[in-house]
Amino acid sequence: MSTNIKSRGYAAKDTSGVLSPWEFERRPVGDNDILIDIKFASICHSDIHQMKGDWGTQQYPQVPGHEIVGIVAAVGKNVTKFKIGDRAGVGCMVDSCMTCESCTHGEEHHCDNGATVFTYGAPDKTSPTGITQGGYANNIVVRDHFAVHIPEHISLEKAAPLLCAGITTYSPLMNAKVKQGDKIGVAGVGGLGHIAIKLAVSKGAEVYAFTSSAKKTEEILALGVKEVIVVDDIAKLKPYKGKLDYMISTIPIQYDVAAYTSVVKRNGHFTQVGMPIGFNITLNNLGLSISRVNYNASLIGGIPETQEVVDYCADNNIFPDTQLIKAEEINEAWEKIIKNESGHKRFVIDGTSF
Amino acid sequence: MSTNIKSRGYAAKDTSGVLSPWEFERRPVGDNDILIDIKFASICHSDIHQMKGDWGTQQYPQVPGHEIVGIVAAVGKNVTKFKIGDRAGVGCMVDSCMTCESCTHGEEHHCDNGATVFTYGAPDKTSPTGITQGGYANNIVVRDHFAVHIPEHISLEKAAPLLCAGITTYSPLMNAKVKQGDKIGVAGVGGLGHIAIKLAVSKGAEVYAFTSSAKKTEEILALGVKEVIVVDDIAKLKPYKGKLDYMISTIPIQYDVAAYTSVVKRNGHFTQVGMPIGFNITLNNLGLSISRVNYNASLIGGIPETQEVVDYCADNNIFPDTQLIKAEEINEAWEKIIKNESGHKRFVIDGTSF
Repeated sequence: MSTNIKSRGYAAKDTSGVLSPWEFERRPVGDNDILIDIKFASICHSDIHQMKGDWGTQQYPQVPGHEIVGIVAAVGKNVTKFKIGDRAGVGCMVDSCMTCESCTHGEEHHCDNGATVFTYGAPDKTSPTGITQGGYANNIVVRDHFAVHIPEHISLEKAAPLLCAGITTYSPLMNAKVKQGDKIGVAGVGGLGHIAIKLAVSKGAEVYAFTSSAKKTEEILALGVKEVIVVDDIAKLKPYKGKLDYMISTIPIQYDVAAYTSVVKRNGHFTQVGMPIGFNITLNNLGLSISRVNYNASLIGGIPETQEVVDYCADNNIFPDTQLIKAEEINEAWEKIIKNESGHKRFVIDGTSF
Repeated sequence: MSTNIKSRGYAAKDTSGVLSPWEFERRPVGDNDILIDIKFASICHSDIHQMKGDWGTQQYPQVPGHEIVGIVAAVGKNVTKFKIGDRAGVGCMVDSCMTCESCTHGEEHHCDNGATVFTYGAPDKTSPTGITQGGYANNIVVRDHFAVHIPEHISLEKAAPLLCAGITTYSPLMNAKVKQGDKIGVAGVGGLGHIAIKLAVSKGAEVYAFTSSAKKTEEILALGVKEVIVVDDIAKLKPYKGKLDYMISTIPIQYDVAAYTSVVKRNGHFTQVGMPIGFNITLNNLGLSISRVNYNASLIGGIPETQEVVDYCADNNIFPDTQLIKAEEINEAWEKIIKNESGHKRFVIDGTSF
């Protein structure tokens, strides 16, 4: 237990956006750590953004992946939360101060001491490579608190996308208190958007899906939405002016935010969860003053809420639509995501293929 | 009454930002119109933005000015709201459809038919110059509904800035239900900001003023604020993280919005009323997700609320700080505003000097 853990994964070696096999080491399993044999890791658009340096300069090689599920293979001596053989999942963070107001209230992603450690690419003295290495690999060592339990009544493959896409959409939807009969808009129907739709539909909401891809219409309708609006022209939003109670946007690029907010009722709320290049979104302030909608942003969720979304989805048969691939197909999958040709299904990498 | 009204004012002739005297004609006083002899017109940063083409291409010559007060000199035959000799004010708009849901509910600035006509530079078939011409002039013809009464217990000079700066800050403060003991932030202490401060102080709020100009500290303290924060470094905001109930920003240029929102408590609201070049504001979405504050924008207010702010200020002795100038000093005043050397006082042009 005191020796480094050998790991095999796929890493970015530069900003090219191309990954290749890489063997590396993780820290030994510490007293509060667990070792997870990764069974599945799914692909998030964030992985691509970060590896390409869209969100700042990166250290390479770097293994992306923050939608991770597997089986606990070892536990540190202080660990009581998990035992060997448990099903466990890891999302976007792997550590925080654990003592501040935010951390002790289940908001470890907003650690007041700025000590939230994200799952890949974050400086990490405990890591032999100096940074955290993510889940596109055959195993991971993580502090027990930052892993969640995966119930038996959801497959590991379907659980994987919940660790980022699930919590990222669940948290703002819960904050917005979405309920039966509410008219909810979801802009952008990819990995995040389709889960947002399933969650809102499960709450009894009437869901309006806004997509730029006409070809996705049928598959989106199958998710149980009331209507699919193909926004190939911004004027397509006009008939919906002020009609929705709330909207969540998963669009990860610059777009006409003020125009999209206009479909929400006055004084309503609009949450942006898609994170564009540089994290910057330019809003037309005049347009926003006309819609009189409150714009906010949301970033994942804390560990208790991450456990909650996994449990909620398992209990309510909310399963992300996934497409299983092998490690050697990652680059091809990334290409499809970048070209917006991947449909809404989440690519899930078979952990045995690393 | 059926002939055009001769008018004398100061107009922009091009995008230079320099105004010069201009004689022009306004439409005859129609059945629903009033003619106002302008006694004072005050200077708003918007005048400068628009004349310089910052918000889109303009038709010239164009007379700016949308903070207008004077004495009614003529009324059309259908007019019952005003009589000759009444004190009247005109703000940022002079017409709308008057029949839609918004117009009939006192929100003429958000006319559902897009028929709101702004006070200067808007296409206007009734105007001999083809566009509306503003208040840097000796008179104006306006539909009676779009003028408000100026009570006797406020001077015309002090009332002028209320027609734009007053309503622009009053409306979001009322929407935010500012009350006794609330901690309210005001960012940017110029014409709008200092009125926002006076209004919030009058409601019993504890006001925190954020300015980039250390030299304004004394004059801002004199407005009754609890504290002046000189933000010469964005780090100066850190000690205020999450401390305020609400914030209004009058900063009319691009700035670090997410950092400013961080001083508002979680799930609180932040209103941007300053309108930057192109109306565009770039937000750091990651920063906004960390502050978890709702960002919105606000544009003036409707006619009933404009009357309300004028009455409220008159009744509560809330008088904008003003500096009287003559028409020939307009260009000098604009220069000072552009260079942020004008302090917080509103320049008010003496209408007799046109």
